[in-house]
Amino acid sequence: MTVTKLKIGAAGLGRMGKRHAINFLHRTPRAELVAAFSPDQTELAWAKQNLEPYGVTLYDSYEKMIQHPELKAVVIGTATPVHADEAILAMQNNLHVLCEKPLSTDIEVCRKVVAEAKRRPHLKVMCGFSRRFDESYRDAHQKMEAGLIGRPSIIRSQTCDKLDPSGFYIAYAAWSGGVFVDMSVHDIDLTLWFFGDDVVPKSVSAHGIRAVQPELKKYNDHDNAVGIVEFWNGKIAYYYCSRMMAHGQEDTTEIIGTEGKLTVNGNPQQNFVNYYHPGGITREVPAHYYGRFEMAFVAESNEFTDACLDDTAVPLKLTNAIKAVEIGAALKEALRSGKQIHFDEVGRRVERASL
Amino acid sequence: MTVTKLKIGAAGLGRMGKRHAINFLHRTPRAELVAAFSPDQTELAWAKQNLEPYGVTLYDSYEKMIQHPELKAVVIGTATPVHADEAILAMQNNLHVLCEKPLSTDIEVCRKVVAEAKRRPHLKVMCGFSRRFDESYRDAHQKMEAGLIGRPSIIRSQTCDKLDPSGFYIAYAAWSGGVFVDMSVHDIDLTLWFFGDDVVPKSVSAHGIRAVQPELKKYNDHDNAVGIVEFWNGKIAYYYCSRMMAHGQEDTTEIIGTEGKLTVNGNPQQNFVNYYHPGGITREVPAHYYGRFEMAFVAESNEFTDACLDDTAVPLKLTNAIKAVEIGAALKEALRSGKQIHFDEVGRRVERASL
Amino acid sequence: MTVTKLKIGAAGLGRMGKRHAINFLHRTPRAELVAAFSPDQTELAWAKQNLEPYGVTLYDSYEKMIQHPELKAVVIGTATPVHADEAILAMQNNLHVLCEKPLSTDIEVCRKVVAEAKRRPHLKVMCGFSRRFDESYRDAHQKMEAGLIGRPSIIRSQTCDKLDPSGFYIAYAAWSGGVFVDMSVHDIDLTLWFFGDDVVPKSVSAHGIRAVQPELKKYNDHDNAVGIVEFWNGKIAYYYCSRMMAHGQEDTTEIIGTEGKLTVNGNPQQNFVNYYHPGGITREVPAHYYGRFEMAFVAESNEFTDACLDDTAVPLKLTNAIKAVEIGAALKEALRSGKQIHFDEVGRRVERASL
Amino acid sequence: MTVTKLKIGAAGLGRMGKRHAINFLHRTPRAELVAAFSPDQTELAWAKQNLEPYGVTLYDSYEKMIQHPELKAVVIGTATPVHADEAILAMQNNLHVLCEKPLSTDIEVCRKVVAEAKRRPHLKVMCGFSRRFDESYRDAHQKMEAGLIGRPSIIRSQTCDKLDPSGFYIAYAAWSGGVFVDMSVHDIDLTLWFFGDDVVPKSVSAHGIRAVQPELKKYNDHDNAVGIVEFWNGKIAYYYCSRMMAHGQEDTTEIIGTEGKLTVNGNPQQNFVNYYHPGGITREVPAHYYGRFEMAFVAESNEFTDACLDDTAVPLKLTNAIKAVEIGAALKEALRSGKQIHFDEVGRRVERASL
Repeated sequence: MTVTKLKIGAAGLGRMGKRHAINFLHRTPRAELVAAFSPDQTELAWAKQNLEPYGVTLYDSYEKMIQHPELKAVVIGTATPVHADEAILAMQNNLHVLCEKPLSTDIEVCRKVVAEAKRRPHLKVMCGFSRRFDESYRDAHQKMEAGLIGRPSIIRSQTCDKLDPSGFYIAYAAWSGGVFVDMSVHDIDLTLWFFGDDVVPKSVSAHGIRAVQPELKKYNDHDNAVGIVEFWNGKIAYYYCSRMMAHGQEDTTEIIGTEGKLTVNGNPQQNFVNYYHPGGITREVPAHYYGRFEMAFVAESNEFTDACLDDTAVPLKLTNAIKAVEIGAALKEALRSGKQIHFDEVGRRVERASL
Repeated sequence: MTVTKLKIGAAGLGRMGKRHAINFLHRTPRAELVAAFSPDQTELAWAKQNLEPYGVTLYDSYEKMIQHPELKAVVIGTATPVHADEAILAMQNNLHVLCEKPLSTDIEVCRKVVAEAKRRPHLKVMCGFSRRFDESYRDAHQKMEAGLIGRPSIIRSQTCDKLDPSGFYIAYAAWSGGVFVDMSVHDIDLTLWFFGDDVVPKSVSAHGIRAVQPELKKYNDHDNAVGIVEFWNGKIAYYYCSRMMAHGQEDTTEIIGTEGKLTVNGNPQQNFVNYYHPGGITREVPAHYYGRFEMAFVAESNEFTDACLDDTAVPLKLTNAIKAVEIGAALKEALRSGKQIHFDEVGRRVERASL
Repeated sequence: MTVTKLKIGAAGLGRMGKRHAINFLHRTPRAELVAAFSPDQTELAWAKQNLEPYGVTLYDSYEKMIQHPELKAVVIGTATPVHADEAILAMQNNLHVLCEKPLSTDIEVCRKVVAEAKRRPHLKVMCGFSRRFDESYRDAHQKMEAGLIGRPSIIRSQTCDKLDPSGFYIAYAAWSGGVFVDMSVHDIDLTLWFFGDDVVPKSVSAHGIRAVQPELKKYNDHDNAVGIVEFWNGKIAYYYCSRMMAHGQEDTTEIIGTEGKLTVNGNPQQNFVNYYHPGGITREVPAHYYGRFEMAFVAESNEFTDACLDDTAVPLKLTNAIKAVEIGAALKEALRSGKQIHFDEVGRRVERASL
Repeated sequence: MTVTKLKIGAAGLGRMGKRHAINFLHRTPRAELVAAFSPDQTELAWAKQNLEPYGVTLYDSYEKMIQHPELKAVVIGTATPVHADEAILAMQNNLHVLCEKPLSTDIEVCRKVVAEAKRRPHLKVMCGFSRRFDESYRDAHQKMEAGLIGRPSIIRSQTCDKLDPSGFYIAYAAWSGGVFVDMSVHDIDLTLWFFGDDVVPKSVSAHGIRAVQPELKKYNDHDNAVGIVEFWNGKIAYYYCSRMMAHGQEDTTEIIGTEGKLTVNGNPQQNFVNYYHPGGITREVPAHYYGRFEMAFVAESNEFTDACLDDTAVPLKLTNAIKAVEIGAALKEALRSGKQIHFDEVGRRVERASL
């Protein structure tokens, strides 16, 4: 008996794309990275050093890569604006798809990807929301499912990045979709996971400021924002997203139930070291989300691979990826319009929900 | 040289009234509790045991108590609906006043108290917001003032009570003013302290649910609510109040600045004990706010006394007490109306703030 | 009915003496501080400001103070070398005695105090080990008594002071009794409390260094020392004492049982504030033991007062104070001799305990 | 360019052996597991499922496995008593060796392994002390090296296992070498790392009990033991080892310097989840050392591989492995003899070190 491996190609070798490629190459026993694509020469040079020696064929054209004769799947880690087209093209070439979040910042485009996937039910198509694969979130979810907190009723969740003074995020704002779609989408996805995929938003409010990056005004974006989503089943989620943390990445979630509460990452820490000094006791914090979620991405690669090889369901529904973007877009609209937004019980926009 | 003491009377000997009486009797060296009033026989019986032996004269009439010939001040710990009348009557009798929060749940009534106090500037009139006297909040405030977090921009603050299944809070809802006025008023007061007394709200949103006490519907109140207040100077405060905590009292505040963050009570704990057992490591949490803030109330008694005796300013402005209730009332309105509320730059209600 | 108060005098108004005086004056409702003594003019000047205005008579002679006609008790907070004589003199004048630890660094002298107290069983004589009155230690003790950790078997306890670069502790070493007797005596007292007063040491080992204060060599003392005490009932306590902490006071205890563990102050903290900054997350630590144990001293004053007024047993046996010093002395001998010391089952020194 | 991989064989497929095999198979990109050996049929059946499909040749004879024609290295994870012979045999077959700790519980046997390795300096021979590869310990070591704590002077380190009521450890005691050699050897190795390989013990004391496994008496072993090692350069390390933890694995280290302190794993935790419930706030703890040190073992595999392929020094000296066992043996002797043990400045046993 010899193990069958999923032959996969990696599209995009930027910061996150590199990580996906390495994870499929070295940390996913049942997968074999056979191809990788980047349009960027620097990235390809990196790949020549780090992927090619392990037998990975390199491409500077996505279209060519997906013609690789052995390929059965692609992992898409390119820039957001091309996610959807690449995903659809891959499906049309009969490839399984693991796509970095979001499918698109445009809901209509998201829907096209989902429609394509529906047409090809034998393909595994997954949009990666890394927190679903994190051991701590999973432990919290299991504890909730086991009834430890009664009926979950309130979620507080935040995605907070370390301040990047380079100006990167200002340029990025041009196409990021705004902080709620770009950042809080993770918290919204968690909400769907913990409250149930079928929750229907009832009303949405949001406020935002530009505390450190006034230039964001030009893109009508914000560096700190707070939003509330109330659901028809008597639950509330509220979110904070920020790109202004001095200390590092701080993604924290609380799930508050009628009989208890679960927190995830209430006390961020880099590792198990504490430093005692004349100013007190200090611990460090991961600077970036990968410092917090690295192993979640590894689990994601492995579970996607398992689903492809074993023909089992992927761990998170593709339709959730749309729903999360829809709620993010509602938060963005509430923020920009200065108005509370209302939905009826089947999710249609209304002027004012009946109370 | 003999020490001069502030002769004070305690109005109200209910749960909190008793504590004020004891604090002035035993834990305020420069004060002397000479009188105490309660309309309630059980409370008077308690006072006979615990106050009278120390030379405190007991009254079943507030009007009579404030005629006590030596009296210079009163501490008002009666039920909220009589706070204002008692405070005004005391001032009219030339007595300094320390009044439990809130002056009233009705802004107009609050304003009357303030007006009376303005007429008598020689009197010290203070509405007690206990967290202002808490060592941890003070330390955080000093650190912020010292510039440790840059420009404070976001406040997250919550007032969360342990679930009381007795039904007490349902009856209480009849006159409490609603959760934002009753509970979040503390968080709003902190906001004024950390952001500055002169901040002007720009817009307000709020959402609430009844997760464990559906009966609150009859008073149009909620057991969990989330609100956001955006201010004209580019700052945001967001609040969570709940009466559903399984584990105990959890009043937590984060002050997030452009260069750092301060948290107060991010990790609630009863004391310094941790219990290691087959299920993990457990620490207990105070069941009630007095378990968290007892020493703050003692500091409050002492600092009020100092201000009276030394004719110095009281540590917190009486006008703040109105402003906090006003913002609480705006949150309540936003919650009940399902609409974002807007103010112009001088604080007048407008349909929609210019963006 | 008027309350009866314990009229007490305070001997010694140095750092700790002042605190005892203030605690009996202002924080012990059933006590009345009527007298205070110090041989030191600066201390008396302080008392003139802080005690006399509240009706306290001041003395520069201990003998005269204890003649104060109303006096029923004394609290002794003078320098250790005079503790015993003052305690004995007080008893001979029919006064209750609360004496700062230790009674003496000399066991024979300790025994004289105990002998005097035995002769006068109507007097309350207590040697103050403050941790017995600390809420956290009490909570841990109750949890242990309730069986939460099974059979307590191992105690780790440390008394660690913030580094004092002033040289104070070098001079102090001349009469402190050595680090084990001066510092670990608290940990030993806790051991007696948690393991039982009747535990008998079986063997003792100790090692020490002079890491920051080489001058201690002249007094044969150390700035860091570690000791182990094994008891005949199959339990072990091990201690660390240090005067070298950069970060502040750190007195930590673990009680390890067959079915669980309790820690006290495993995570020292000044208050509830955490400061998040580019270097991580920092909390401060109390600089001195009074920052950690202030309320324990207040409880001590009150409980001693209750015992005197109500003629009930004092909360900790005077004989323990001897036993703790005896074990401390054994640790000192083990440290200095470089030999393990052995005792038989009734506590007599032997060359080698049978195994 | 194709990557060159280290072809390695895994000896022993028990609990830890399996993990080494999997780590070299799936988590060490530059290594290729080509062979695996176990004398045990159950283990071989596991290997047939989990290793063979990936191209690993299986053996039921160690001698045969090391004849595998492509083999360049072995990882030895068999039972301790055969470690040394297998290591020597491998070296004699010109193979690099990564051997689980300890080389042997017998110092003379350890020395034979080291002697063999000295004869073949072109071979990489490493005894795995996993904590050296743990990110937190490395961070602490770097901080110490950077001078953050001044001169390290005191180490407290403990290796504490979750209670295993199965009786396994009683049988294991027959050949484990005793708790100090089996468990504290990790803490001793850390001491050599943090204090320097060249530290010379000056004196050693130890005490132990049998709190939960009285049957250990038959092997003269203990389930809880405390030991102190004083070094000639004015430093002290003290150790606690236990097999009685109710809550899980708790391996904690403090490095206390003249200007600061570093702790590693002062607050053990399974993950980032906290559960808030009526009894307080609880977090879980890993049940076993692999839950704490899994990634350290992965780093170990990778770094050993790098050293073999790149002909660089292995990250920890083989002679340390002897020294750690020597100190462990001295602790065992001190425990069993009830006597403090002394060494002169070059490490020779003496009756009493000069003071």
